[in-house]
Amino acid sequence: MTFTDLVRTRRSVRRYKPDDVAPALLDTCLEAARLAPSACNSQPWLFHVVQGTLKSDLARAMNSGLYGKGLNAFIDEAPLIVAVETLPRERLAPRLAGLIRNVRYEMLDVAIAVDHFTLQAAELGLGTCWIGWFNEKAVKEQLGLPPKSRIDVMLTLGWPDDRGAPKNRKPLGAIVRRHGTPSP
Amino acid sequence: MTFTDLVRTRRSVRRYKPDDVAPALLDTCLEAARLAPSACNSQPWLFHVVQGTLKSDLARAMNSGLYGKGLNAFIDEAPLIVAVETLPRERLAPRLAGLIRNVRYEMLDVAIAVDHFTLQAAELGLGTCWIGWFNEKAVKEQLGLPPKSRIDVMLTLGWPDDRGAPKNRKPLGAIVRRHGTPSP
Repeated sequence: MTFTDLVRTRRSVRRYKPDDVAPALLDTCLEAARLAPSACNSQPWLFHVVQGTLKSDLARAMNSGLYGKGLNAFIDEAPLIVAVETLPRERLAPRLAGLIRNVRYEMLDVAIAVDHFTLQAAELGLGTCWIGWFNEKAVKEQLGLPPKSRIDVMLTLGWPDDRGAPKNRKPLGAIVRRHGTPSP
Repeated sequence: MTFTDLVRTRRSVRRYKPDDVAPALLDTCLEAARLAPSACNSQPWLFHVVQGTLKSDLARAMNSGLYGKGLNAFIDEAPLIVAVETLPRERLAPRLAGLIRNVRYEMLDVAIAVDHFTLQAAELGLGTCWIGWFNEKAVKEQLGLPPKSRIDVMLTLGWPDDRGAPKNRKPLGAIVRRHGTPSP
């Protein structure tokens, strides 16, 4: 499969079969995430993989309070949930760089690693869904993480039980501006 | 090439040959970015592709002031620079979601699109380098963008003129925590 085909194949899956995901397949996805680039190679990520009854508790925590409007009711269908903890930058120089530029680079890094995870899953025929709308406080309590820790992204993983729909994207002309002419 | 191989192949390229990148190859990278997922399908990205003498002016702007300590002196070697403008979320619901969760989801979205771009480039044999440390104000002036616009990520694109080095990453055990046991 070419990369273009892989990108076309990947989609958000919100219906899952109850079948388990073999540990080796999960680890292949984690390995693709592990190899992701990050600013100053800081690798500011910790992947919490949750399954079984704990996973159902976590799904409830995600959808609790303000976040329980049914939008993500499918979460508990997936056999696995991954909560990605965003770690603070350890080294001083990149931390200062983030402060000066006012950019949370760690978030960019986490997004790259999770993108790798989801693309690897798609190549294996697995389905994922990025989830950004969840009760972070309740999730951290459920996982026993301190209040100061950060979880910006979660995702579901499992075998798709839907057919997907064609992608709806802006045309290339709407997302590209070309400046300058080639050097003679 | 499997996705794992592609991820292993992609690396940060900081030395470039002077050869031009054919427009069709550039467009293949932009197409992979175009198909990237984003929160609520908001596609909050605008890719400014800069070449020729304008590119050299932009490289100077990136490295101007506080940012001119030689760290990114290689930038002008690349035949192309891409400045990725992060657009604000248009629809109210996702904007509110970002405010409530205190997450700049647009940054996550941009990172995914740029990750697609860099992986597609790697498949084509092209080199890229993510750049987060640059004089954003000077870059926006150079591109004629308003002060309120945001550029969180830039990248170089061209033909690699180095051999690369092995990746240095934390082992899987250091980036994964497993919670719960499979359902019986």
